[in-house]
Amino acid sequence: MSKLDWLENNIKTINAELITQAQKKQNSLTKPPGSLGRMEDIAIQLSAMQKNNEPEIKNIHIAVFASDHGIAEENVSAFPQVVTLEMVKNFARGGAAISVLAKQLNASLEVINVGTVNEHEAMAGVVVRRVAAGTQNFSKQAAMTIAQLHAALNVGKDAAQRAIKNSTQLFIGGDMGIANTASATAIACALLNEKAENIAGPGTGLDAAGVSHKASVINASLKLHKDNMQSPLEILQYVGGFEIAALTGAYLFCAQNNCPIVVDGFISSVAALLAIKINSQVKQWMFFSHASAEPGHKIIMQAIGARPILDMNMRLGEASGAAILVPLMQLACALHNNMATFEQAGVTDKD
Amino acid sequence: MSKLDWLENNIKTINAELITQAQKKQNSLTKPPGSLGRMEDIAIQLSAMQKNNEPEIKNIHIAVFASDHGIAEENVSAFPQVVTLEMVKNFARGGAAISVLAKQLNASLEVINVGTVNEHEAMAGVVVRRVAAGTQNFSKQAAMTIAQLHAALNVGKDAAQRAIKNSTQLFIGGDMGIANTASATAIACALLNEKAENIAGPGTGLDAAGVSHKASVINASLKLHKDNMQSPLEILQYVGGFEIAALTGAYLFCAQNNCPIVVDGFISSVAALLAIKINSQVKQWMFFSHASAEPGHKIIMQAIGARPILDMNMRLGEASGAAILVPLMQLACALHNNMATFEQAGVTDKD
Repeated sequence: MSKLDWLENNIKTINAELITQAQKKQNSLTKPPGSLGRMEDIAIQLSAMQKNNEPEIKNIHIAVFASDHGIAEENVSAFPQVVTLEMVKNFARGGAAISVLAKQLNASLEVINVGTVNEHEAMAGVVVRRVAAGTQNFSKQAAMTIAQLHAALNVGKDAAQRAIKNSTQLFIGGDMGIANTASATAIACALLNEKAENIAGPGTGLDAAGVSHKASVINASLKLHKDNMQSPLEILQYVGGFEIAALTGAYLFCAQNNCPIVVDGFISSVAALLAIKINSQVKQWMFFSHASAEPGHKIIMQAIGARPILDMNMRLGEASGAAILVPLMQLACALHNNMATFEQAGVTDKD
Repeated sequence: MSKLDWLENNIKTINAELITQAQKKQNSLTKPPGSLGRMEDIAIQLSAMQKNNEPEIKNIHIAVFASDHGIAEENVSAFPQVVTLEMVKNFARGGAAISVLAKQLNASLEVINVGTVNEHEAMAGVVVRRVAAGTQNFSKQAAMTIAQLHAALNVGKDAAQRAIKNSTQLFIGGDMGIANTASATAIACALLNEKAENIAGPGTGLDAAGVSHKASVINASLKLHKDNMQSPLEILQYVGGFEIAALTGAYLFCAQNNCPIVVDGFISSVAALLAIKINSQVKQWMFFSHASAEPGHKIIMQAIGARPILDMNMRLGEASGAAILVPLMQLACALHNNMATFEQAGVTDKD
């Protein structure tokens, strides 16, 4: 079985003194204090994370984890399972949303196949780390074995490690996997003691009857595995997905190594919630990019205590919502670094 | 008196067929339909505005209009009046927020002095079109004469004309003027039949007592000028400001010439409301960039029927909130233009 001892590694608290210093710098700039709102918050947070009074985001890494879900056979998705692998190819060829965004942002994009049902030829930009040919149907049995869970967490860790080795200043994780909102919903319900009908949504496009069916499949599955799901890792094992486990592992490893994280939408936020349940310190290293249109996302954000920065009615996944936050973060840095102070500009301050 | 006949010029309706075509293109791209949310809306709108199925934003023009307000002597601002001109200098020297943002966005930035109290030496990047040495104190008399109103509207028109002559694809207007939230609030109250206490806010940083005083100054002024304010232009003349009039003129001229507009925060939105009251067609050419932290902004957006795209808790003005929308608009275009269709990518569609 893959080693998982790294999961317990320490995550540093962000230095409060650096936050105070960065806040002080913001207050010296030629604007009413606080008037740049969340742009100020972003710069201050990054400044403290990077221990740099001139924070910057030049080296950006996007890792999209793809895998299949046995639960797809219960008709819980509007798209057929074959789409997962088709989209992996689309990522690699540059045709998907995240491919276009990564190119525009000049970010490195790595697609990691954590377990599609079918194998595929080698493709540039795709790292093949298939844990299995998809998870098992969790309405009938555990989604994965313990060994598979560990392997998937390590796939995420390794992806984060590659990014950090390449000096990334921002780790962005994304997901692809037909039926993965069903898995993410089941995880969230188990973690938060919620009924599926309070979290389940249309995903890629179910109608009301489809959402209702999805919720009952999830409720039945939660009942089936109830006694086996006593910890976040057990929940991941019983109703999770390989890409969700990989994201969880990647987030924890990034935070252990002081690397700022941008969390995407519904799937990624459930992985973030898992990571936080494993080690709450991870949250400090996260930016929550956007409010997903998937209705259950709100409950996840509330549980985490996060207020997402953007609200663009997006629900694609693939890290697309996280990616569009990047230019705002870069502008936030530019403002922090390049605005004149009241003193420099000879502008009269409020007092 | 300056000619104002251009104000009545026709504004075209955006072609509904082009909207439908762009929507169809979005639906063919490899993602669940609608899953890019407002990013899709932005691209579709721009595509129809530009009559281009590959919309683009490369040439961006930012015009910041600055002027002083006689009402400042009623203690309605947290900063002294001298700051208006000091900030004009700061804009020109590159130290202000909008200077930093314009540089990052590779946008052209023009600062137009529509009427600071004091004159100043020539400065690169500053166009001097001082209508007067600030407006009059509208708690005592009309803010400006009819001739001054026309002149200020024409300053805006001329700025828009220069931008359009330089082939701008996006016009962004901004404001600077100590006490201009008082003027904007008075305008909004007069246009919407609201009490000042429902719209007045802290502006650059008034405390609760300051906001309350500001509201009573505005209410008294509205009472004083009630009978003279029967039209949007009369409201502008009696309680407006030169930079607000210039923004109003610029918006109308842009729309008359098919140039997309990005509206900034509180002051700009009041100018947008004025423009809409003059010719409702102008609204179609506007993107409403962000929800200002200035509390009255919400009422303005509701009156316009607009849902701002970002909500970053910003309240600086200077076009700063509009500027940070630009990279998202550019990413929206890139997605629209460069994503693969289901057919191109060989991805199985929902049906």
